[in-house]
Amino acid sequence: MAEPEAAANGAAEGGGPLFRRLCIIGLGLIGSSIARVAKERGDIAGTLVACDTGPGVAARVAELGIADVVETDAAKAVLDCDGVILCVPVGGFAQLMAEIAPHLSPGTVLTDTGSTKGSVLRDLLPLLPEGVHLVPGHPMAGTEYSGPDAGFATLFEGRYVILTPPPGTDPGAVERVTELWRSSGAMLETMDATTHDKVVAIVSHLPHLIAFTICSTADDLAQETQEQVLKFAASGFRDFTRIAASDVNMWRDIFLNNRPALLEMLARFSEDAQALGRAVRWGQADFIEDRIHRGQKVRRSLIALNQA
Amino acid sequence: MAEPEAAANGAAEGGGPLFRRLCIIGLGLIGSSIARVAKERGDIAGTLVACDTGPGVAARVAELGIADVVETDAAKAVLDCDGVILCVPVGGFAQLMAEIAPHLSPGTVLTDTGSTKGSVLRDLLPLLPEGVHLVPGHPMAGTEYSGPDAGFATLFEGRYVILTPPPGTDPGAVERVTELWRSSGAMLETMDATTHDKVVAIVSHLPHLIAFTICSTADDLAQETQEQVLKFAASGFRDFTRIAASDVNMWRDIFLNNRPALLEMLARFSEDAQALGRAVRWGQADFIEDRIHRGQKVRRSLIALNQA
Repeated sequence: MAEPEAAANGAAEGGGPLFRRLCIIGLGLIGSSIARVAKERGDIAGTLVACDTGPGVAARVAELGIADVVETDAAKAVLDCDGVILCVPVGGFAQLMAEIAPHLSPGTVLTDTGSTKGSVLRDLLPLLPEGVHLVPGHPMAGTEYSGPDAGFATLFEGRYVILTPPPGTDPGAVERVTELWRSSGAMLETMDATTHDKVVAIVSHLPHLIAFTICSTADDLAQETQEQVLKFAASGFRDFTRIAASDVNMWRDIFLNNRPALLEMLARFSEDAQALGRAVRWGQADFIEDRIHRGQKVRRSLIALNQA
Repeated sequence: MAEPEAAANGAAEGGGPLFRRLCIIGLGLIGSSIARVAKERGDIAGTLVACDTGPGVAARVAELGIADVVETDAAKAVLDCDGVILCVPVGGFAQLMAEIAPHLSPGTVLTDTGSTKGSVLRDLLPLLPEGVHLVPGHPMAGTEYSGPDAGFATLFEGRYVILTPPPGTDPGAVERVTELWRSSGAMLETMDATTHDKVVAIVSHLPHLIAFTICSTADDLAQETQEQVLKFAASGFRDFTRIAASDVNMWRDIFLNNRPALLEMLARFSEDAQALGRAVRWGQADFIEDRIHRGQKVRRSLIALNQA
């Protein structure tokens, strides 16, 4: 394993750019933001290759001038690269990996930005060539916009990026991915994929599921009530719709690729909601007060952590 | 009915203040904000009486100088008033009405700021003296703070106030309450109590129930996961906690006094959440996409209405 390790560490130690030739696959909000950071800084990629098969995306990326080379063939795009970042919705990982795996060079650092990490290990590890280093990652950043025009170089500043390298991953490879995100202004955390999936299920996936649901529930009300819901939305409903304007493909894939953790959190939440509903029905004031107190407690904890 | 009608219209038409002697009962966030508006403007109340039985509240109101007369006995406070506003949590309405009803003068306009309106009619109408005009109201305004120090004169500016006068209510009385809120900068809507309770159940009460619940669900997770929930809250969870820091007594009373509408909306929402959970479990991509599309649609409607 001496040679791949040396390769994984090489560029970072040599004083040159972090990656000699870096390929970003998927130039949506996240991928095009990484491209912009790399172009602006200059010390991340010697040559920056962008690959996207979406209609018109490659042409737009060329127009925007945020990559040195633009490709629509992933197998060709990854050739001779020492860094590859997958930024497509997680539902596309298995097929994409089947396309690129035979063309990855030994020593290449392979990372991604998918929102579910168990599914990424499931889809990538079986096809991972000997000597290629997989360091899965998840930048906790986003806006309600998508596509190559939506990206911007400061998207990751002050945001968390969670890395979930499987046990035994080459430390040099982890360090290079860490350095990539540090250069983007992000804060790094490392955890195992299962913990990651459970945490994002409660902090992100379940809130999105609830947001989509309450919009649908409101949308099913009689026309007159619907209009009043929109008119009086500021009373609380509005806060729940803020995250409902999200990319359809990305969120469909997230839900389908974090099934066990999301369904477990939905089950826990549903039990808790039913218990509170039951307390309302039977007039159990103490139970209701306890729930409100716990809401206040969690909110205060967030304020204390400057996360509010 | 000629005399009470004349009284209900009198002050408004005479060029003097809207109410000769106005009593506010309950000097929390809402009540103390109304008091501040009345003191600042001068044309709302000839004499402003404030009444609160909470420990130290009356003394604090006197210190703040936001009323002309401060009382702790509601029966005494309403004597000789031509306007009375109940601003206590809705759970206290029945008992408060029993105390004040014998002391209300014919022609008095009685209004309130309770968040549930069916319960207000249920608790006030049976005790309403002949010639006293009941015009229930609900200002859709608030902050996460409570108490007499939390109020401010601009709280109602640009916010909706919903009036739910029962059929046959004296139009002059409705006009005076309307004028009170217009003077506070609010926008007026009128609807029946049942419609009001259904609308606020979906736009406000259900979102609060969900917010309290998801905080409890997160609070029940293992300690390590809890810390990570707080750390990564920006991914969506945070938006749900924003409304969880709410006054305990007020929200307990709201839940207990809007039972049928809240439980119906919770049931609809729960069915919809389970349906989406089922689609996740069985990999029904079309169903999931449809729900995300509907979330986007509702969000776009809010943006179009400048309510986002």
